[in-house]
Amino acid sequence: MSDERGPGSPFDDVVDGLRREGLLEPPPSAAGPGAGESHEGTGRVQLTFEPAGRTFRVPPGVSVFDAASWNGIAIDSTCGGHGTCRKCLVRVSSGSAPVTRHDRRTFSEDQIADGWRLACLVRATHDLGLEVPPLVTRPKASTVGVGRQVILRPGVQKRYVELTDPTLADQRTDLQRLRDAVDDLTLNPDLHALRRLPTVLRQSDFKVTAVTVDEVLIDVEPGDTTGSRHAIAYDLGTTTVVATLLDLETGTPVAVASMLNKQQPFGGDVITRISATMMDPDALGRLTQLARQTLSELAQEVLDEGGISPQSVYEVALAGNATMTALLLGIDPEPLGVAPFIQVSADWPVLHASDLGIDVHPGARATIFPALGAYVGGDIVAGMLASGLDRDKRVRLFIDVGTNCEIALSDGERIVTTAAPAGPAFEGGAIRCGMRAADGAIEVITLNAGASGDDEAVTLGVIGDAEPRGICGSGLVDAVAELVRVGLLDESGRLISDEAAAASVPALAGRLATVGDGERVFILHRPTPDAPTVECVYLSQRDVRELQFAKAAISTGWTLLLEELGVSPRDVQQVLLAGSFGSYLSPSSAVRIGLVPKLPVLRIVSAGNVAGEGAKMVLLSARERAGADAMLAEVAYIELSDRPDFNDRFIDQLAFPV
Amino acid sequence: MSDERGPGSPFDDVVDGLRREGLLEPPPSAAGPGAGESHEGTGRVQLTFEPAGRTFRVPPGVSVFDAASWNGIAIDSTCGGHGTCRKCLVRVSSGSAPVTRHDRRTFSEDQIADGWRLACLVRATHDLGLEVPPLVTRPKASTVGVGRQVILRPGVQKRYVELTDPTLADQRTDLQRLRDAVDDLTLNPDLHALRRLPTVLRQSDFKVTAVTVDEVLIDVEPGDTTGSRHAIAYDLGTTTVVATLLDLETGTPVAVASMLNKQQPFGGDVITRISATMMDPDALGRLTQLARQTLSELAQEVLDEGGISPQSVYEVALAGNATMTALLLGIDPEPLGVAPFIQVSADWPVLHASDLGIDVHPGARATIFPALGAYVGGDIVAGMLASGLDRDKRVRLFIDVGTNCEIALSDGERIVTTAAPAGPAFEGGAIRCGMRAADGAIEVITLNAGASGDDEAVTLGVIGDAEPRGICGSGLVDAVAELVRVGLLDESGRLISDEAAAASVPALAGRLATVGDGERVFILHRPTPDAPTVECVYLSQRDVRELQFAKAAISTGWTLLLEELGVSPRDVQQVLLAGSFGSYLSPSSAVRIGLVPKLPVLRIVSAGNVAGEGAKMVLLSARERAGADAMLAEVAYIELSDRPDFNDRFIDQLAFPV
Repeated sequence: MSDERGPGSPFDDVVDGLRREGLLEPPPSAAGPGAGESHEGTGRVQLTFEPAGRTFRVPPGVSVFDAASWNGIAIDSTCGGHGTCRKCLVRVSSGSAPVTRHDRRTFSEDQIADGWRLACLVRATHDLGLEVPPLVTRPKASTVGVGRQVILRPGVQKRYVELTDPTLADQRTDLQRLRDAVDDLTLNPDLHALRRLPTVLRQSDFKVTAVTVDEVLIDVEPGDTTGSRHAIAYDLGTTTVVATLLDLETGTPVAVASMLNKQQPFGGDVITRISATMMDPDALGRLTQLARQTLSELAQEVLDEGGISPQSVYEVALAGNATMTALLLGIDPEPLGVAPFIQVSADWPVLHASDLGIDVHPGARATIFPALGAYVGGDIVAGMLASGLDRDKRVRLFIDVGTNCEIALSDGERIVTTAAPAGPAFEGGAIRCGMRAADGAIEVITLNAGASGDDEAVTLGVIGDAEPRGICGSGLVDAVAELVRVGLLDESGRLISDEAAAASVPALAGRLATVGDGERVFILHRPTPDAPTVECVYLSQRDVRELQFAKAAISTGWTLLLEELGVSPRDVQQVLLAGSFGSYLSPSSAVRIGLVPKLPVLRIVSAGNVAGEGAKMVLLSARERAGADAMLAEVAYIELSDRPDFNDRFIDQLAFPV
Repeated sequence: MSDERGPGSPFDDVVDGLRREGLLEPPPSAAGPGAGESHEGTGRVQLTFEPAGRTFRVPPGVSVFDAASWNGIAIDSTCGGHGTCRKCLVRVSSGSAPVTRHDRRTFSEDQIADGWRLACLVRATHDLGLEVPPLVTRPKASTVGVGRQVILRPGVQKRYVELTDPTLADQRTDLQRLRDAVDDLTLNPDLHALRRLPTVLRQSDFKVTAVTVDEVLIDVEPGDTTGSRHAIAYDLGTTTVVATLLDLETGTPVAVASMLNKQQPFGGDVITRISATMMDPDALGRLTQLARQTLSELAQEVLDEGGISPQSVYEVALAGNATMTALLLGIDPEPLGVAPFIQVSADWPVLHASDLGIDVHPGARATIFPALGAYVGGDIVAGMLASGLDRDKRVRLFIDVGTNCEIALSDGERIVTTAAPAGPAFEGGAIRCGMRAADGAIEVITLNAGASGDDEAVTLGVIGDAEPRGICGSGLVDAVAELVRVGLLDESGRLISDEAAAASVPALAGRLATVGDGERVFILHRPTPDAPTVECVYLSQRDVRELQFAKAAISTGWTLLLEELGVSPRDVQQVLLAGSFGSYLSPSSAVRIGLVPKLPVLRIVSAGNVAGEGAKMVLLSARERAGADAMLAEVAYIELSDRPDFNDRFIDQLAFPV
């Protein structure tokens, strides 16, 4: 693969950081000619890595090591690109790179003349060809998200040092002594670390481990504790909250736990919870408390399961929608719930785990995903990060299906996003026999119009292999798609008459009925002489309408995004179905009802819990966190409700595709 | 006055800040020729202000407005140099300055050609002559410290803004809306401010006042509250704690309160309190709690007296010695108390008032003065700042007299400092009839060898005009100095024999006596037939020895500092006596016993409570705070106990000067 799209603004953040630290020259325009040759006027330079044969365009000034690890090219390193381990050997095969004093200590004269350099010290100021030797040490990397390979570089770092004792001739402060010994990290202590420092140093004979999160020294621990570094990633859903305890040394999950969001009693969706705060002045405080309890109990659970001390969890990351995030932080969510749908802020200051009620290390930091809009929240940014939507040349559509449906489209250069009000149908709300995806919910439905008997004509997949009690979102989509396929539902979404059914689909005609209030229904499951007490589970005409409204809102959303980027539906190379509902959806059913563009089903991929994956990624790599922050500037948000043509388009999308 | 010493590193901090923000070019060496002409190879440029006729050398890149205000040259301004008020008019009479778009909006073509510019936008990149017009608005300035004129530029800033309502077409976040309206300040919100933002904006019709401390947005307040900005300055002494409530709008103190440090029960000096923490594991917690209570009650007191709401106090500053600071912050002070006397850190992270137990605005920041050594603490840095030791061409000696005596010497270019272990004599400790400076303490003593009677030969000044009960530190110095003057004490510090006294000083000979254990004493006050019940107050031979030890330690200290800078004692142009004891000392007595160099008494100045003044200064001006921080890098600390010649020099200094 050549000429891949290089990473975008995630690097820009790094570059800005380097500039601020004076480690990098100003941008070409400011520094004048010669400071860095930009490539094809894009302000990028081109790096080609051999033997991988991959080429990336990167912002000038980024280190070759960073550029490689960002793109999944493994270069040997134990210090993670800090210039200390001297393991990240590369040969500059075309172009040139200045020789640093570290290079002189690492390589012979001949090797230097031959182009060998330390990759973390080579700045990409012009196009370079680079040879990467085979790995000696195994780089620490982890596969997370949608096949994303993340090279481990957590914000949490530890360094074990053995310090000399102070004397009257060497009265450096404890902090200075530590700083002088840890030369590859910045140590800005917090108050807790300062309280611990003198005591721990003297109790452990000045042999200690410094613990930092980004540039903050949050603790000093007696002896060598470098082997123990943990973090917790949270996916704070409106319904379900998931916590994953990560070992930052290995990048692997140690334990996972999930539970219902304890805010449930205030309502199942964001709007009912926002409403609660508008009607009861105490509700916000209660909701905040419940969210904190949820996170705290989950932390306890994964720590117990992993046998890990809370004191060794130094960072948490949280992805949640804008309302869940506001409620957790004690911020009035009302402006999110009423037009014009305003967030207090798109991103969040540096917080502590204790600000979220999570009882881990007292200095532990909390990273909360930024949001692109009131209805394209941190969970979606996390999902886009986990699915690599921001670095892929393919045209990809990301759909998080739910009460509020978030949609993002990337054409490989730009990303646009919107939110579509799908309503509660997917959660089983407003559906006669609707229920959550729990035991007894019908989640898969297959109709066989050629069956010999009524019983064989309907095959149900039921969660927990239990007696069917209701129908969940994916079952609803399946049912409607199957009814359309066999012809019991017409294009406009109307259940056909008994007579027409008897004529065209005799095997299933007996399932059609008219219930008490005259509404037409299709019976999925009913009492039999063998099982006379089971509940009757059916799909009603009104249920079909609910789903039509939901799918019309969603398809209106992606239709507008496709238009925005000038992309035809058939050019979409991949559709990622995300979220707890989207991940269970049958791709063929989604295509059949028009929830997604009419594409080969292989292009429609279940992305899983991408929000949680995104939260894990930012803990495993500070670079990924920069990538998430960069999306704020890069991704354009389009407000559907502000479009005068929304209603017309919505009505156009109500019908099922033929 | 011409060619005054320009401000030193306080500016360097500012310059660094500007560089980081990209507002300023790199230093000349990095930017190449032409970026800034340095002056006489010092890396400084020279600014001459007319009609004041004053010249300063400043680091290149600083704004003319800053350079002027730093040096007490008042230039009109209402925005404080933020580039918004367009009032800081100056004419560049020699040298040249680029024309900015703000200049074009402010001046006519002719005026620009004539050299008129906005002073806050002119960077001093080469030597300039500048004409400052007479003031139109009165600049807000305040006289604090030892005659220091501080131009008001508090870290606490407020801006009243009227925002437009959000719409579907303008979905900027609340924070972005506020940021766009407050264009002259950086607003990094804390969590509390984010919690308040959506509610306050909507409750007050989007008319709010943003409150920032440095670059942190700590609150938004409904309506226009710009008139109300307060801060509290603390002098956290081992004995006495003083709080001053400041009105940051006017720079004036609103209320002052003081009380004994509630840690007193743990011992009167730092060593006894450190010892307490070494013997009792609970003592540190108790001491921290008592310090917090002291600060908290004082805050309540000044707020009550000033009729000011705690919510309008947005910053506090605190100057204390290293031990008091450590105890307040809950940091083990043991390493400060035992050789080699190590601090945990010289400076402190950004803290909140709540970290110090002070109940004011929840987002209020706390600035704690940095320390130069375990025994040259934040109180001394504050004192040096308040006395302007870091910007004066004169040779000045600063002595904070106490149990531990801190000494600093500036030769107008460099500053060196040390700590001398004077012992408890000045606090009345180890003195037979010693007492604190409280009612009944003899503080002034005059002996009249020519008096006709014993009673008239001794004149006592007693605190509170009460019956004498004891002798305080200044009385001790006075007594010894007077005894030396009249000849009752010889040069070696021995009280002469009764016979010799009867011969040479008959009027006072009757005051000499030998007490129970054979020790010689000089009686200052005794029972008379008229007042038979009063206590006998006397000075003993051992008391004289205690004072000799104390003064020898101090004079050894300043002798070594004078040698360090190659300055002769008679070249010292000013001696500043600081601290609660030093300020009450009689300059002539101090000279007579050799506590200070032998100089005309007019050169010996009582500096008052300079620590408290320094704390006020950093609240009134963020520039002054930068100055305090800069001292860490600028001032050299010399450890006396590490000098092999200390004991010999100490013995040399025991005698009284002849």
